[in-house]
Amino acid sequence: MALDSKIHIHHPDQALLGALRAKVDGKTKPLGALGKLETLALKIGVVQQTLQPQLVRPVILVFAGDHGVVAEGVTPYPQEVTYQMVLNFLGGGAAINVFARQHGIALRVVDAGVKGEFPARDGLVAAKVGQGTESFLRGPAMTYDQCAEAIRRGRELTAAEIEAGSNVLGFGEMGIGNTTSAAALMSVLCDMSPADCVGRGTGLDDAGLLRKQSVIEQALALHGRHPADPLHTLMTFGGFEIAMMVGAMLGAAEKRALLLIDGFIATTALLVAARLQPAILEYSVFAHRSGEAGHTRLLAELHAQPLLDLGMRLGEGTGAAMAYPIVQAAVGFLNEMASFESAGVSERQD
Amino acid sequence: MALDSKIHIHHPDQALLGALRAKVDGKTKPLGALGKLETLALKIGVVQQTLQPQLVRPVILVFAGDHGVVAEGVTPYPQEVTYQMVLNFLGGGAAINVFARQHGIALRVVDAGVKGEFPARDGLVAAKVGQGTESFLRGPAMTYDQCAEAIRRGRELTAAEIEAGSNVLGFGEMGIGNTTSAAALMSVLCDMSPADCVGRGTGLDDAGLLRKQSVIEQALALHGRHPADPLHTLMTFGGFEIAMMVGAMLGAAEKRALLLIDGFIATTALLVAARLQPAILEYSVFAHRSGEAGHTRLLAELHAQPLLDLGMRLGEGTGAAMAYPIVQAAVGFLNEMASFESAGVSERQD
Repeated sequence: MALDSKIHIHHPDQALLGALRAKVDGKTKPLGALGKLETLALKIGVVQQTLQPQLVRPVILVFAGDHGVVAEGVTPYPQEVTYQMVLNFLGGGAAINVFARQHGIALRVVDAGVKGEFPARDGLVAAKVGQGTESFLRGPAMTYDQCAEAIRRGRELTAAEIEAGSNVLGFGEMGIGNTTSAAALMSVLCDMSPADCVGRGTGLDDAGLLRKQSVIEQALALHGRHPADPLHTLMTFGGFEIAMMVGAMLGAAEKRALLLIDGFIATTALLVAARLQPAILEYSVFAHRSGEAGHTRLLAELHAQPLLDLGMRLGEGTGAAMAYPIVQAAVGFLNEMASFESAGVSERQD
Repeated sequence: MALDSKIHIHHPDQALLGALRAKVDGKTKPLGALGKLETLALKIGVVQQTLQPQLVRPVILVFAGDHGVVAEGVTPYPQEVTYQMVLNFLGGGAAINVFARQHGIALRVVDAGVKGEFPARDGLVAAKVGQGTESFLRGPAMTYDQCAEAIRRGRELTAAEIEAGSNVLGFGEMGIGNTTSAAALMSVLCDMSPADCVGRGTGLDDAGLLRKQSVIEQALALHGRHPADPLHTLMTFGGFEIAMMVGAMLGAAEKRALLLIDGFIATTALLVAARLQPAILEYSVFAHRSGEAGHTRLLAELHAQPLLDLGMRLGEGTGAAMAYPIVQAAVGFLNEMASFESAGVSERQD
């Protein structure tokens, strides 16, 4: 299976790395004393190809979609919570609203495939691909055309944001049942057992966790594993919000923006994107280690070191929003801190 | 050894905890899904004795002092860097300036005992107790009177900030050689070997690390260990900036402010304060796990779970400043998020 139109993500030129390193090391602090902020400053400088990076018009896109697999009893919450939570986002009352407001991040809520119709509302991007996916225990979650359409719309969405001036985009999601979908994708693409990929999601008990694992095992037996074809895997097990996020991430990196990757589901979308275009990882900042069990293994698979580990497991882009001030701090110290020379501070003597 | 005037820190009343927990659990998110933010929201609510906590006029105090023990070769940086960095703070070019500006935190630079005289400058609090401490390899680092005076001035400083309206105070420091002083304090008060308390500070090599450890071992042999007398221990091994921070922390908790504890040195000051008044821990938020080796053991001793782990090891209050938006987020979600009821979102069905 192939994408309709060719997406190509360039490896950013590393030539600037030496000058960036020298700038970081000249700041009034012991070598390496700003830890992960230093690594982050280098990464952003390379992505933006400048010694003076800037973060402009940060946006978080929250992709929402429903999942047919909810019918198999994989979550304690009813499916209509996806719809209700989209209204909560639009009303400004969800966690992501609070954190995005706190940091001056614009929020877009994208209906990628929620069951039910929304009235037109400010802040809602109507991009519905279908009324929720099919249960992947019965057949593929979506059709080929739906998968391609979701990716195409995601790519258009981020292209429009970047056109409007944004150079840093966060990715979050909402979809009752989507940890099951994400765990199935991870299981295939990382060649891991479902047991290593599942977690308690919104709060499954032990019996529920085993049921979720069993659902994925049955689905894998039904569809087989085709890790060499990430799009086929996405179509089979994905959600509309996950597929649209894959397209949005690809589109953002294609245009050389910085990507803030939220939690378990968003990282799974990035995994799909990275299997298509590995260079996307050079544009990606991992925001938060989710409390969802599979996430730590998934991060290890991607050699990712998330900025935060606050034990959150909410999605919505909350991790991306919480990590944003750290990204700002990395850019801030690089641009604003004095050097040993400019401040007249003595360097080490050995 | 006793303090001149009685400081008493009250255990905050826990009666509100149930109502706070209910408020957190009613928010539109799965139970516990905001992880450490939830614990933090409960703590702040209890400290402020309200279901609607507010953070008002955040301040970070950076205490600077010089250390006689630098003469024993415990750091690769020359002593005058303390003085030079104070000027850098006042000029706005240090890391803490960048991060404090980013988050709208006022910064006070306190000369607790830097060698040399500063011209009067905006933002500099002149509270010098001495021209640096004596080397604790030769005798006690400071006199009884100096130690008491440092604590008294620290307590006055935070009282004045709280009087002016602040209810959240961060504590940072600058002092070439002060990881050696802090490691010695920790070694006595936690009854641990110096090897378990030292780290590379601003960047010691292996030989330097062994020398630092040996200096502390010799000093312990000279002075003995008196863990039951934290003030005597502070006088013997402390720095003026550490002693003044102890007083400032005690003064802040006495007036029921929230304390943001930075890295290794600030945590050591809190350790001294907590051995005097254990209730201070109920007012303390641990900002960041320092890259300095002893810090992880010290945090464990205090049963502390820091908010951040960014591999920074710079002091100056940088960890406290970086953690501030997380503290804001905890207050923000508690005050601003919708409840299941108000948002019309269905709760779990099992």
